[in-house]
Amino acid sequence: MTSQRLSQQLAFLTEADQLKTILRRTSLIHDPRKENTAEHSWHFALMALTLAEHAPVPLDLPRVLKIALIHDLVEIDAGDSFVYDTSAMADKREREEAAAERIFGLLPPDQAAEYRALWDEFEAQETPEARFAAAVDRLCGMLPNYKNSGGSWVEHGVSAARVTERNRPIGVGAPALWEVAEGWIREAVEKGWISE
Amino acid sequence: MTSQRLSQQLAFLTEADQLKTILRRTSLIHDPRKENTAEHSWHFALMALTLAEHAPVPLDLPRVLKIALIHDLVEIDAGDSFVYDTSAMADKREREEAAAERIFGLLPPDQAAEYRALWDEFEAQETPEARFAAAVDRLCGMLPNYKNSGGSWVEHGVSAARVTERNRPIGVGAPALWEVAEGWIREAVEKGWISE
Ligand SMILES: [Ca+2]
Repeated sequence: MTSQRLSQQLAFLTEADQLKTILRRTSLIHDPRKENTAEHSWHFALMALTLAEHAPVPLDLPRVLKIALIHDLVEIDAGDSFVYDTSAMADKREREEAAAERIFGLLPPDQAAEYRALWDEFEAQETPEARFAAAVDRLCGMLPNYKNSGGSWVEHGVSAARVTERNRPIGVGAPALWEVAEGWIREAVEKGWISE
Repeated sequence: MTSQRLSQQLAFLTEADQLKTILRRTSLIHDPRKENTAEHSWHFALMALTLAEHAPVPLDLPRVLKIALIHDLVEIDAGDSFVYDTSAMADKREREEAAAERIFGLLPPDQAAEYRALWDEFEAQETPEARFAAAVDRLCGMLPNYKNSGGSWVEHGVSAARVTERNRPIGVGAPALWEVAEGWIREAVEKGWISE
């Protein structure tokens, strides 16, 4: 007999599988197909684990990993909002709030509250863990573009100034990683992939 | 200036991206395409996080999450060995050892040793964390088959007896989850998806 609690958890985990069908704008590093948000979340968590020592203060690493694993689940309902698409970004918050309500709401109430709090923490960007997670999430998004001669930056004609502006939070959450990111942007301009 | 240490970490994370191109035998729950190992690793980690309370003893959850995130990286070189394919399973260990050596070896030595130890821990199945991780990994593999009228069990003509035999480790790492799994297998037989 499966308890109601376990049934709710399995219903949530079944629904979560949908994240594998949500496509992002970036491609894989070694393959031209677009990346889905589930595999991105894995790469993000692995990156956070591997680069944690570069955070400016000691972190509660398990909380960073949990944030990485759950923060994008809202995209199942709200879709991936391309960071350079101003209209999609406008009502992003509202769409994602409703999604968080529904998706985390599949869980037993205490877990729904826990996951919702992790998601809120990431959105609020007030803790070192949330800021480091945001830094790594963005670095993770930049990596395939850097490795693929500009990738989606070139595809969407984004300038170095906009890439810098959008990714500046890396410098807040992880200054050492922002140095790396700035080097990538500089190199992308030098190699003529993107304009200043 | 990127330090040598950070360069090694980024080289590892770039290589890790390949896991998104390794296909498993199971399909997604809501989509017929085959699942790749990176998105599986994410689902596995989310499942471990969500179901941790069903472990028979209190766990070091961060270690379980780390195991989930890194244990399948060897498939980049060794491929996914289908659990019902006896010949692929025969030299699995050897192929995966070499892969672990190369892939974790991209990291700075202390991290290479840490990730290798996590992988060895999972393979050895001697700690509650490794056993719980193995249980969740298998439950994660069963879920899409259960949700899709037998899925790859039907595709490969696997009997209930073999599914039971292959997934029995769930009962070792998480008896409460094995009860669920046994219920799924019983239902699969009752509904005529698979034979006894
Ligand atoms: Ca996102």
